[in-house]
Amino acid sequence: MTRNNKVKVYDLIVLGSGPAGEKGAAQAAYFGKKVALVEKSEFLGGAAASTTIPSKTLRETSLTLSGVRARRLHGIDLSIKGKATVKDFLHHERMVKESERKRVLNNMLRHKIDIYHGLGSFYDKKIIKVESSNNQPYYLQGEIILIATGSSPRYPDNFPKDPRIYDSDSILQIKKIPKNIVVIGGGVIGCEYACVFSELGVKVSLIHNKEILLPFLDHDISIALKNSMSKMGINMLVSDGVESCNVKEKNIEIILTSGKNIHTDSIMLATGRNSNTDKLNLDMAGITTGKYKLLIVDKNYQVIHPETKKPVDGIFAAGDVIGRPGLASTSMEQARYAMIKALDLEPYKEHIAPILPLGIYTIPECSLAGKTENECRDEKIDYVIGKASYNQNARGMIIGDTDGFIKLIYEFNKDLKKPMKLLGVHIIGEIASELIHLGVNALMMNASSNLFIDSCFNYPTLGELYKYATYDAMGNRTKRIK
Amino acid sequence: MTRNNKVKVYDLIVLGSGPAGEKGAAQAAYFGKKVALVEKSEFLGGAAASTTIPSKTLRETSLTLSGVRARRLHGIDLSIKGKATVKDFLHHERMVKESERKRVLNNMLRHKIDIYHGLGSFYDKKIIKVESSNNQPYYLQGEIILIATGSSPRYPDNFPKDPRIYDSDSILQIKKIPKNIVVIGGGVIGCEYACVFSELGVKVSLIHNKEILLPFLDHDISIALKNSMSKMGINMLVSDGVESCNVKEKNIEIILTSGKNIHTDSIMLATGRNSNTDKLNLDMAGITTGKYKLLIVDKNYQVIHPETKKPVDGIFAAGDVIGRPGLASTSMEQARYAMIKALDLEPYKEHIAPILPLGIYTIPECSLAGKTENECRDEKIDYVIGKASYNQNARGMIIGDTDGFIKLIYEFNKDLKKPMKLLGVHIIGEIASELIHLGVNALMMNASSNLFIDSCFNYPTLGELYKYATYDAMGNRTKRIK
Repeated sequence: MTRNNKVKVYDLIVLGSGPAGEKGAAQAAYFGKKVALVEKSEFLGGAAASTTIPSKTLRETSLTLSGVRARRLHGIDLSIKGKATVKDFLHHERMVKESERKRVLNNMLRHKIDIYHGLGSFYDKKIIKVESSNNQPYYLQGEIILIATGSSPRYPDNFPKDPRIYDSDSILQIKKIPKNIVVIGGGVIGCEYACVFSELGVKVSLIHNKEILLPFLDHDISIALKNSMSKMGINMLVSDGVESCNVKEKNIEIILTSGKNIHTDSIMLATGRNSNTDKLNLDMAGITTGKYKLLIVDKNYQVIHPETKKPVDGIFAAGDVIGRPGLASTSMEQARYAMIKALDLEPYKEHIAPILPLGIYTIPECSLAGKTENECRDEKIDYVIGKASYNQNARGMIIGDTDGFIKLIYEFNKDLKKPMKLLGVHIIGEIASELIHLGVNALMMNASSNLFIDSCFNYPTLGELYKYATYDAMGNRTKRIK
Repeated sequence: MTRNNKVKVYDLIVLGSGPAGEKGAAQAAYFGKKVALVEKSEFLGGAAASTTIPSKTLRETSLTLSGVRARRLHGIDLSIKGKATVKDFLHHERMVKESERKRVLNNMLRHKIDIYHGLGSFYDKKIIKVESSNNQPYYLQGEIILIATGSSPRYPDNFPKDPRIYDSDSILQIKKIPKNIVVIGGGVIGCEYACVFSELGVKVSLIHNKEILLPFLDHDISIALKNSMSKMGINMLVSDGVESCNVKEKNIEIILTSGKNIHTDSIMLATGRNSNTDKLNLDMAGITTGKYKLLIVDKNYQVIHPETKKPVDGIFAAGDVIGRPGLASTSMEQARYAMIKALDLEPYKEHIAPILPLGIYTIPECSLAGKTENECRDEKIDYVIGKASYNQNARGMIIGDTDGFIKLIYEFNKDLKKPMKLLGVHIIGEIASELIHLGVNALMMNASSNLFIDSCFNYPTLGELYKYATYDAMGNRTKRIK
């Protein structure tokens, strides 16, 4: 520390400006705290702005350009599949990415948060050193430090480095749309990209080491997604793994555990992510990390020692850096809640959102809130299910989504005059990630089957499916009793 | 009545198979009642299947074919505007219409409802005579009779009959897409069709006799819709009326009250609808109708005499035939509720849906639930508003809807630590009619601002706008107090 670099003192220092960092910083500043935000990149927004948003934009553009929506609606094929260049896709993607980065910046400025660009690391337990190539280091002292540095793709050892092998960050820099691609890993990122590429007319193979895709989904939804992906033409290689990957001049050869042999132009690795904790100099704060370099936290998102389980004074963490579910939505909630606890802010948010939905941007979308059928079984809860299909719904027919459906899980109640308590909502189909919010709110308010029976839904809308799935559940209850 | 036509006895006879008729019949049959459904047309489904669904399908197809979605997303213009033929539009429309008719039929068959095709009219207070060209008349006796015969377009006297002058029924039989069209009437139907035609590249003029479009909408939404329609290129002739309409060989001339003079290829009349009560032989049941041939009902949807206000024994009415709002969604609710009351069914639905949303399928969509700002002012309720824009939302940016917004109205509460009660939700933008349901449920459950603050929304979704509009309202409250 030189004389020119006096330590600036803050109530809160946030490392990282992704969804967790942004919302944590804004939350504290909103309540009058002095906040510094440290971001290693030139832009704010983190992975959400740099990879999540662009990947969802690519998805939207692919749906439009490939003509899937148009094709369903009439005889003509509007598709420009094959003729589309990467440039076509990047036009809109760049705009959206820049808007999102600007939005985050404006949010920070509006909240009068000091922004430091550079690599932040622990100088001691309370002081963060910020280094950049342009400036002398800054030293910032924080009563509270929130680590929200996110995660980076994990590169498995059995894959060589080759420009035709992409991870979920580098895939967005792809120069031309490949003829074929092998996606390694059937998690959220793997499934999402497999669908987008397939939509673009790329011949896609998906290698997944389990039988079931996305096992946290309700079984019916997971099966429906798998069928839908097969129907799209994706070569689904489940319960299989990569034995070896050999880079050749003309193509890449993958030998599978099953003995199968694939030649491909390109590979996308979707094999999990590691926490960005390497460069934080955590030793200086007396912190060690767990598996995949994850920070371990308690229920208030305060960092704890993996061995002693004791909380580390004043240091909190939220978002990808603490692991699952690693979604922007939940990361924001974690950070907001952590800051309420850390800084003892007005108790306007006394608990973390009690229901955390999951939204998967595959084609079609999947989304869930509350319990799955398997969870009910494990918890020995007696339940009744009700389903309603998009193809039995006027708007479903209008938009041409014939495969989508909603599945509601209600707690069984043998008194036919009594409503049943809602336990879980599961949707696959267009705008599933939007429709789920009705279920989220219903679950938050401990709603019963009466809610959807008593609701008036606009016509034609997909929202109506909640009512018809509830009727179905009521019918199933009656059948079971009689 | 001949010997061959014995009177068949039912618990309920329903006249008309539109949304009100279908749901009323199914409701009664579900609870074990013997039900007859009388439909004058060859197909079931009424106006919802024959005009509402086709018009919404036309809207969806126009959005896709015109390339509005694609154009927003990238440089290329996918539009086939001008090249599209009516056949292109009708391909999907026919399929959707047939599916919806089949769905209604299956619903009736599943509920073991007897269907009679023919014109139903009162033979006496309890007997309905069904006449068709194929068969001898049927005579059906009903303990309860539900009139759900809908409405038909009203044809104003100052318009001659001409094949180039369409109403909201005949417009769907249009043979080719006109170069230009004048839409008469700025109600829901007029605004919806003006947008669809404009989207298809037709030069549209809209003549509306008031300054404000759709005055039941919140003022901000109404203004935004008008601006948006102007921006689309629709010639908005507000506060104006038609003085005369002169059919010429080459075109049609309209002279406006303001003195303006328009020449057009075609006209669409959207000048209100009359109840279909003419052919019901209402005299025989001792019923008379009100303005626009409307049936007058009490709070249980039982028909009452316009003068004596006394309920007519056993006769109920629901849907368009009783007038506003004349929406499929509300019609279904009315009929279900009427049947619960009429047949004293199990009290699983003790009240009509307490919040009735409105969905307007303009481009962009508009939707509302609960109170408008004007209503709050009239009722002397102190309120705070909060807004959030689609262009500040990640999914809004992804789908390229930069004009949409949500506006929440909360009851003012000066105690900053207390949440505020939600009073109204107003949305303009893509999928507004779906997004509104979150507000409908919140209003039904008397939710406060805490609900949306505590909710976790998928990212990226438009649903998040509820949270940010609530933050905005909270900020506005704070500003007002300080």
